[in-house]
Amino acid sequence: MIPETMHTVVPYGVGDVRLDRRPVPVPGPDEVLIRVLAVGTSGSDVHSYEHGRIGDFVVEEPLVLGHEPSGVIVARGANAWRHEIGQRVALEPGVPCSTCARCAAGRYDLCPRMRFFGTPPIDGAFREYVVLREDFAHPVPDSLSDEAASLLEPLSVGVWACRKSRVAPGSRVLITGAGPIGLAATRTARAFGATEVVVTDVNARHLRVAWELGATATVDVSRESLADTDFDPDVLLECSGAAVAAGQGIGKLGRAGRAVSIGMGGDEIPLPPAHVQGFEIELTGTFRYANTWPTAIARAANAEADLECLVTHRFGRSEVELALTIAAKDDSVIKAVVRA
Amino acid sequence: MIPETMHTVVPYGVGDVRLDRRPVPVPGPDEVLIRVLAVGTSGSDVHSYEHGRIGDFVVEEPLVLGHEPSGVIVARGANAWRHEIGQRVALEPGVPCSTCARCAAGRYDLCPRMRFFGTPPIDGAFREYVVLREDFAHPVPDSLSDEAASLLEPLSVGVWACRKSRVAPGSRVLITGAGPIGLAATRTARAFGATEVVVTDVNARHLRVAWELGATATVDVSRESLADTDFDPDVLLECSGAAVAAGQGIGKLGRAGRAVSIGMGGDEIPLPPAHVQGFEIELTGTFRYANTWPTAIARAANAEADLECLVTHRFGRSEVELALTIAAKDDSVIKAVVRA
Amino acid sequence: MIPETMHTVVPYGVGDVRLDRRPVPVPGPDEVLIRVLAVGTSGSDVHSYEHGRIGDFVVEEPLVLGHEPSGVIVARGANAWRHEIGQRVALEPGVPCSTCARCAAGRYDLCPRMRFFGTPPIDGAFREYVVLREDFAHPVPDSLSDEAASLLEPLSVGVWACRKSRVAPGSRVLITGAGPIGLAATRTARAFGATEVVVTDVNARHLRVAWELGATATVDVSRESLADTDFDPDVLLECSGAAVAAGQGIGKLGRAGRAVSIGMGGDEIPLPPAHVQGFEIELTGTFRYANTWPTAIARAANAEADLECLVTHRFGRSEVELALTIAAKDDSVIKAVVRA
Amino acid sequence: MIPETMHTVVPYGVGDVRLDRRPVPVPGPDEVLIRVLAVGTSGSDVHSYEHGRIGDFVVEEPLVLGHEPSGVIVARGANAWRHEIGQRVALEPGVPCSTCARCAAGRYDLCPRMRFFGTPPIDGAFREYVVLREDFAHPVPDSLSDEAASLLEPLSVGVWACRKSRVAPGSRVLITGAGPIGLAATRTARAFGATEVVVTDVNARHLRVAWELGATATVDVSRESLADTDFDPDVLLECSGAAVAAGQGIGKLGRAGRAVSIGMGGDEIPLPPAHVQGFEIELTGTFRYANTWPTAIARAANAEADLECLVTHRFGRSEVELALTIAAKDDSVIKAVVRA
Repeated sequence: MIPETMHTVVPYGVGDVRLDRRPVPVPGPDEVLIRVLAVGTSGSDVHSYEHGRIGDFVVEEPLVLGHEPSGVIVARGANAWRHEIGQRVALEPGVPCSTCARCAAGRYDLCPRMRFFGTPPIDGAFREYVVLREDFAHPVPDSLSDEAASLLEPLSVGVWACRKSRVAPGSRVLITGAGPIGLAATRTARAFGATEVVVTDVNARHLRVAWELGATATVDVSRESLADTDFDPDVLLECSGAAVAAGQGIGKLGRAGRAVSIGMGGDEIPLPPAHVQGFEIELTGTFRYANTWPTAIARAANAEADLECLVTHRFGRSEVELALTIAAKDDSVIKAVVRA
Repeated sequence: MIPETMHTVVPYGVGDVRLDRRPVPVPGPDEVLIRVLAVGTSGSDVHSYEHGRIGDFVVEEPLVLGHEPSGVIVARGANAWRHEIGQRVALEPGVPCSTCARCAAGRYDLCPRMRFFGTPPIDGAFREYVVLREDFAHPVPDSLSDEAASLLEPLSVGVWACRKSRVAPGSRVLITGAGPIGLAATRTARAFGATEVVVTDVNARHLRVAWELGATATVDVSRESLADTDFDPDVLLECSGAAVAAGQGIGKLGRAGRAVSIGMGGDEIPLPPAHVQGFEIELTGTFRYANTWPTAIARAANAEADLECLVTHRFGRSEVELALTIAAKDDSVIKAVVRA
Repeated sequence: MIPETMHTVVPYGVGDVRLDRRPVPVPGPDEVLIRVLAVGTSGSDVHSYEHGRIGDFVVEEPLVLGHEPSGVIVARGANAWRHEIGQRVALEPGVPCSTCARCAAGRYDLCPRMRFFGTPPIDGAFREYVVLREDFAHPVPDSLSDEAASLLEPLSVGVWACRKSRVAPGSRVLITGAGPIGLAATRTARAFGATEVVVTDVNARHLRVAWELGATATVDVSRESLADTDFDPDVLLECSGAAVAAGQGIGKLGRAGRAVSIGMGGDEIPLPPAHVQGFEIELTGTFRYANTWPTAIARAANAEADLECLVTHRFGRSEVELALTIAAKDDSVIKAVVRA
Repeated sequence: MIPETMHTVVPYGVGDVRLDRRPVPVPGPDEVLIRVLAVGTSGSDVHSYEHGRIGDFVVEEPLVLGHEPSGVIVARGANAWRHEIGQRVALEPGVPCSTCARCAAGRYDLCPRMRFFGTPPIDGAFREYVVLREDFAHPVPDSLSDEAASLLEPLSVGVWACRKSRVAPGSRVLITGAGPIGLAATRTARAFGATEVVVTDVNARHLRVAWELGATATVDVSRESLADTDFDPDVLLECSGAAVAAGQGIGKLGRAGRAVSIGMGGDEIPLPPAHVQGFEIELTGTFRYANTWPTAIARAANAEADLECLVTHRFGRSEVELALTIAAKDDSVIKAVVRA
């Protein structure tokens, strides 16, 4: 039975999160209603909770956060036909218009009418039920746990970055920053065939996880200089958001190297024109992902992209505020997951 | 000390192979002299030995066969600088002109002036010493055995086919034919991230090796029909040379599927236009490889592309004829390697 | 004022076309209602009229034909916002589901739920009014006539074929067949920068039009053999549907050549494996188009892709049957357009 | 008869250019000896003449400048076979090693052992005779004048930039800077099918030439702001070397836009990360070109890439210093060509 109201975690202001009851949403014709099973907390959730804004978006209304959910389908809209009731799914948290030129060209991540969980005016997943267009609910096999299914979101970020930078068998990849995104990128770079993956950070704990996930070397840049290493990468995945790391990473790239700046924000990137021109470095940024979920699921089901070692902390549904608070303050947190 | 003459295995005619002494070649300015350590026997070697011709090339003169060698550098030409004496190398057996339009564009496999081991008028590697342009001798790490280094040639065939068909993480790959090339392709498809690799053959022994190399399923097409399986591949690597297998494989491909016909020869491929047009199937063939050795070495050194289970038979240098005879007649042979 | 009923050209059977009155359709929420201004007759219309079937589709019910229309927007559905009433548009005649994996990846031409004008169960454009999803109605500038706007459909076929075969500045393109598609491809190959475009046919009149559209040479294959020419193409656009032309064209391609078989039908293509492998020929087919209308409109508005010389015959709305009859029998017809 | 010595224009220091006699060079085995017919003066020649250095290269020795030559073959080395004596050619002025990984992959512009005319230690073309590896001497048809053949070098810069930024039919291209490179890029962008090409500069005379070469609009940024225009480019070709122009140009790019920074030098480019990430802008630089001459020649011979309106000043061989002086001081100079 689907109840009429549900628990919903609502951040009324910085440091003021309440567990409200709100109506359970009703799926539109092409939508499904999903009971949430697990939700990862991301850096942008933590940032919004702490600062009340992320990127260009100001969180003006009490918007529900959370965009890394897994769940189970409990109802279907009038025209929804893809899934059976009871199907466990990973939720791709951004739904584009599917009719603009970008969508038609397969680049729906750039849709100007994208509606994304936890980004105004779309509520996120820290609640009991959500609705989603059925084609953005991706069935997951039994071999994937609810938690693993929620980790497909950061894995998708890594898949998209590896595609954009054309990581391929034999690639030598430098990853600056070993937060959840950098660590997911470590795993995906290996899954794409990279034979050298060097990860930098200042957090030794995170660098140890990078090892577990397949990094072939790590550099604690609080102790040694990346410039001193003889690593000769052809790809840079910049996951730190720090301009200095971006600049050093670009400087390490060899001829025809590719750099991708992942995720939102970060300082202005200083771009040395002589190096970019003389070596014909290619640079781009990524904003979310497109067409990555099937790949991420196939790899995860293959047991070769196991990200569960990222989950350092687990919380119950009523503990979202605690989860965000701890994630914000404790650098031993890599990924905190909220369980239903 | 480099001797003046060397043992050379010369096929004087069908079934008439002799161990001659010939002068040790002298490296040209850009070449190195290499003492051969191991040579794989390929299907085209066996075919030439049995029939005296392969593809368009008629073996009119007693040409030395063998194009899958590894070796060690023992001397350098006047301008050669890339390698030290004693460096162990895998030999890329075809040297292009490097100055035509195809070479300049990075497609040296299509160079009309290609000089290839064992293809007239270039002697192959079933002898003690060979010369090679230094940039086609690829250093191998200590972790790779002499045999493994000789297997980089079929591995390169697989790498090139996977590149041409854009195998990527999540790809579903059908491989028709589990001979050495099909088996090497099985390994490389996995290294490129394919999550489903189905291999067909009529030889159960070969299909077992496909399992060992990472196939997720095999189909003995003497017992069951490929058409009856519910496999939905997006890539076909046709390694059997049999028109019927090619036709069935193409017929299994889904929308936007890619098919690559690997290696020389084979019958005329029947191409169903409605399927090719309606599904926009892409079809191509591969002829050898270009720029694959560094990738193949990096993957092999990563211990993820271990092909040594392909080697079913080993012979000494004086046993080349025996090796070719057995390879021709005994279908338990997958790869026979001749050791120095 | 929009009337309640409209003239509709209905082919009741082979050679039995009637001018019925049918209700004017009502646009759905995302659709617009368009008054038809001009409709080109295509080869598949003629084929359906003559034989009652085209490709895999059997015309079982009296289905309205016509898929090359231009028109003007006269009403909008509840959610349609892209166009003003009175906007003149070219109609992209196939509307995909926009939610399957192919659509999400930007290959909506391969959508298995495509709904295409004149293909069961979707009525075509030989009638006064049609409805269309608003994003498939493409505004055209005043510089384009109604007729020119209807010719954007065959132009799109050419654009897609040139993209798939990577025609680029300096390309040498062979086009086999100078029907409307081959002639549109001639124009687009030039617009893509091809510096040599050789067109073959047996119809001297069509070959003259090929000249007007930018062919650099033509070959009347009833008089001279393509094999005798010293043309060395790198791209083949096969527009004849004749297996012999396809085979000869593929045989002319140089190393790394690309062949595209355009449009539906045609005989089985004989594929010489030695040539395809040794030269690494790439072959594919095209089925309609994706994301081509904006390009086709921009080029047409640039006055560099003027296809109006294709229009050899013009008919009024009540003369559709006459148009189809003449197009079927008179080889002086290149493109017959039905005007509102 | 080939003389033993030749006139050579040697810049002994800033403002000190002398006409020396030097020995006529002797072609190596794979080289041809070419009598120079025309040489364009480039911005880097002028810069070297004025400042004694360009980019990272310090002109320490009296190095001959000039890297935009055309000429005629007068002698051939022992192994040279491609050209007949008397063949008129355009000279591609940089010869790579053709054996490193970059060369083998078709990216010879990134060869670390590139030997480039007018870059130490390789003398340029302001002299009567030069030697060149025969495959870098590109035959030109009679329809191209000596001057036009020398302009193939800046045209190649444009071709490479258009390739790197994937200019295609329908592209909307912003070109910042209407110097010779920006003007050549204007022409090539049109030849690649761009339907909108907007050129910015502060020099009204240069902007008029941009019109002649096919720009669809120009913006004199000393009078109006680029930001105020409603142009919505998808490609930026940055040809000004000015950081502010680069920054404004990148800021104008729409989603999935591509930016190429052309040529050497320029200030540090300020890269706004939110725009680069949110719109997934792709940015790269180009350094010379690879595999562009055949394309440039085919287009030029097609009379669609006529650059001769760039030539504003002509000088005789003994007037190189005058040419460089005037080019440095007079902003009415677009391209000065030195004739033999």
